[in-house]
Amino acid sequence: MPPAISLITLLTDFGDRDYFVASMKGVILNINPQARIIDLSHQVGPYQIEDAAYVLQSSYPYFPDGTVHVAVVDPGVGSARRPLLVSTSRYFFLAPDNGLLTDIIQDELSVEVRQIENKQYRLNSEGATFDGRDLFAPAAAWLTRGQAPGTFGRLIRDVTTLPTQEPAWEGSTFVGRIVYVDHFGNLISNITSSHLAEIRRYTKRASIVIRIAGRTLDDLSTCYADGSTDAPRALINSNGHVEVFVKEGSAAHKLNVRRGERMEIE
Amino acid sequence: MPPAISLITLLTDFGDRDYFVASMKGVILNINPQARIIDLSHQVGPYQIEDAAYVLQSSYPYFPDGTVHVAVVDPGVGSARRPLLVSTSRYFFLAPDNGLLTDIIQDELSVEVRQIENKQYRLNSEGATFDGRDLFAPAAAWLTRGQAPGTFGRLIRDVTTLPTQEPAWEGSTFVGRIVYVDHFGNLISNITSSHLAEIRRYTKRASIVIRIAGRTLDDLSTCYADGSTDAPRALINSNGHVEVFVKEGSAAHKLNVRRGERMEIE
Amino acid sequence: MPPAISLITLLTDFGDRDYFVASMKGVILNINPQARIIDLSHQVGPYQIEDAAYVLQSSYPYFPDGTVHVAVVDPGVGSARRPLLVSTSRYFFLAPDNGLLTDIIQDELSVEVRQIENKQYRLNSEGATFDGRDLFAPAAAWLTRGQAPGTFGRLIRDVTTLPTQEPAWEGSTFVGRIVYVDHFGNLISNITSSHLAEIRRYTKRASIVIRIAGRTLDDLSTCYADGSTDAPRALINSNGHVEVFVKEGSAAHKLNVRRGERMEIE
Repeated sequence: MPPAISLITLLTDFGDRDYFVASMKGVILNINPQARIIDLSHQVGPYQIEDAAYVLQSSYPYFPDGTVHVAVVDPGVGSARRPLLVSTSRYFFLAPDNGLLTDIIQDELSVEVRQIENKQYRLNSEGATFDGRDLFAPAAAWLTRGQAPGTFGRLIRDVTTLPTQEPAWEGSTFVGRIVYVDHFGNLISNITSSHLAEIRRYTKRASIVIRIAGRTLDDLSTCYADGSTDAPRALINSNGHVEVFVKEGSAAHKLNVRRGERMEIE
Repeated sequence: MPPAISLITLLTDFGDRDYFVASMKGVILNINPQARIIDLSHQVGPYQIEDAAYVLQSSYPYFPDGTVHVAVVDPGVGSARRPLLVSTSRYFFLAPDNGLLTDIIQDELSVEVRQIENKQYRLNSEGATFDGRDLFAPAAAWLTRGQAPGTFGRLIRDVTTLPTQEPAWEGSTFVGRIVYVDHFGNLISNITSSHLAEIRRYTKRASIVIRIAGRTLDDLSTCYADGSTDAPRALINSNGHVEVFVKEGSAAHKLNVRRGERMEIE
Repeated sequence: MPPAISLITLLTDFGDRDYFVASMKGVILNINPQARIIDLSHQVGPYQIEDAAYVLQSSYPYFPDGTVHVAVVDPGVGSARRPLLVSTSRYFFLAPDNGLLTDIIQDELSVEVRQIENKQYRLNSEGATFDGRDLFAPAAAWLTRGQAPGTFGRLIRDVTTLPTQEPAWEGSTFVGRIVYVDHFGNLISNITSSHLAEIRRYTKRASIVIRIAGRTLDDLSTCYADGSTDAPRALINSNGHVEVFVKEGSAAHKLNVRRGERMEIE
C-alpha cells in the first residue's frame, strides 16, 4: 500500500466547458482542503476507453508515490458496472470496471482490486448519472486523508479487461496497429523498440521497412526535425513506441489514418 | 460573512488559448502566493451570460466554505456596468453586474451585494478592457488575505437580474425550456424532479410523456446506459433536472436543438 | 538571481488532450512535491513560436518574483538546437533556443543566458522527442528546489532571435502589423499607445485614422461596449496595444485577417 499523500490526478471525457470537472474538484476540496489536483486530460473523446487507457498509461508512472489517479470514462454510469479501487505498490487508481485499468492491473506490482461498496463515502445526490462527482471524487479525497482501501469494499478477482493488442508475426511480416493519434496528428503504434530489436535479431539486418496505409516509409529518423514536411517518416517516440509523423504537419491527415490502422514491419 | 480561506475559482469566456486567464492567475499569486486557484471553466461561449450562470450554479455549492468564486463573462467591460462583490453565508462572489449572479442572489442566505469602488485594490493598467485581470483578480486575492467586504465598496440594492425562466402550466401541459446544452450534447431543461412530482400529483398518473422538437419521448430512463443509441430518451440528471440524451451520442445533433427550445410534459 | 519559490508556469503547443502536459507535471511533482504549477496555455498553434512569445510576454510580468517560466514550442526538439536557461532579476525562463525568448532577453534586466548541459538533471528516457518532459520539466523542478543556474551549464552569448517587428514610418503613414489574433477574434497590433502619442505629436492632430484590410476605421473607442456589432472599431487594449474588434463578434472573421496583416495609421 502506497503512502498517503494529498495528490490527485483526474482523467475524464467530460471536456473543459461544463460544470462536471469543477464540481468533482469542489467535492474533493470540501473533504480534503489540502488536496492538490492535477488534470491529466478531460479531452478524451466521449466514451473512448482505449484512448483514456493510453493517456493514463503514458503519464501515471511519472507521478510521486502515493498519488491517487482517478479515471472516469464511463458510458455505463448508473448501470450495474462496478466502481473499482485498485492499489498498487506505488499508487491508487479509481475507475469504472470497464477495462480502463487493464494495463495497470497487468503491469503493476502488488495489485489489489476492490469494488467500492461503502455508501458512507458516497455523496447523496439525485440522479444516477454522475459517479465522477458522487462516488469517485469523494473516494479519492478520503484516500488522501489516509482512509484504508479495505474500508471501501471487498477484494474482487473478475475484473473487466480490454482485448490486448499485442503485435505479432504473420509469416515474415511483423504486424502491429496504431493505438493512439495525438494532438499533432502523430500516429503511435503498439510496436516498441524492444520489438524492433527482436525483428533485427530475426532478420539479421540493421535497417527496417515500415508499411502503413499503402505507403512504405524510410528507415527511422531520430527526431521530428530530421523528418520531411511532405513525406511521413517514423521514429521511436518518447514512450519507446514506433510513431509515424510528418515534420510540422499531421501524419493522420496526410495518410488519412485513425486508431486501429494496421502497420507492418519487414 | 464566510471564513477567509485561500481558495479561488475562476469562470470566464476567455478560452484557454490566450494570455487572459494566465495573467489573472499571476495577479492573484502576486498578491497572495498561498492562494489556490481552481478553473471552473474558461470555455463558456463568448458573452453567453446564461451559460456561465448555469455552470456556476451547478458547481459552486460543492466547494468549501470561504471559497471566492470569480465569474467574468463581461461584454460590458469598461462601460458603466458595475463590478459586484456578493457575500453569502458560505461564499464570496465577484462578477460584473449583468445578471450572471441572478440565481445566487435569489437563492443564497445572508446575501450582501456591494459595488466594488475602492481604487486601492485595482491594478493600474492601460486600457479599460480587462477588469478580469485589473479589478476582479486583485479583489479576489485581497479577499483571501482577509480583507473585509466592507472595504471594497458600499451595499447596493438595484442589482441587474436575468429574466427568470420558470416552467409553468399552459392548460393541461407543463411547459419548460432547455437551459443548457452540455459537451456531450445532452439537453438540460429547467424542469426538475420536484416539478415532475407536482405533475404526477396533478395528473394522478405515474408515467409521463415528454415532447420536444416534434418528438415524443418514452418514460424516464434511470441512467445513460439504459438509453438507446438511436432514439432520444430522458432522465433525471445529477442536478435533479430533466435531461434529454442519446446513449453514447448527441441529443443536440439528433434533434437539432439549442438552448431555449420548448419542452412539454403531459 | 531571483529568490527560489516553488511556482512554475507552463506554456506549450501540446494541447490539453494527450499525455504530454500531464507527464511534465508528474516529473515536476516527483522532484519537488511542493511545486505549484500554473498553465499559461497549451493551445498555442503547433510550432507557432511567435504566438507563444506573445502569450508569454503578455502574462509573465504579473507573476511573483522567483517564478520559473517554462515555454516549450519546439519544432527542433532532438536536433542540435540548444535548451536555454535564462535568469533575470525577477524570473527564470526555460525554453528551446529558437527565438521564443527574444523579447525577454532584450527587455529584462540582469539577463544571464545559459545552455543547459548538465545531464544529471535530465530524465533517462527512450527517444529524443520529448525535452518538455525529459529536460525542461526536471530543470524547472530543480530550480524551485534552489539549484543554482550555474550548475546547469555555461553562459552563452549567441542566442537565436526572431526578427523584430517594430512598426515604422513609410512617408507620412505609420505602418504596423497584426501580431496576435485572440480567442475572441480581436486583432492585436504592434502599434502601442506610445506610438500613437508619437503620431499625434508628428501630425499635430488629436484624432487618427486607422486602415486595415481595405477598411478605414473611426477614431478609437475606449471599451468593447462602445463598439459596433457590425463595423470593426479599434481601441487601446489591456496591454497598451492598438486592437481591432467587433462588439460581441470576431474582427478576424469580419475582416478575414490573420497574424501578419498590415495596419496603417494616418
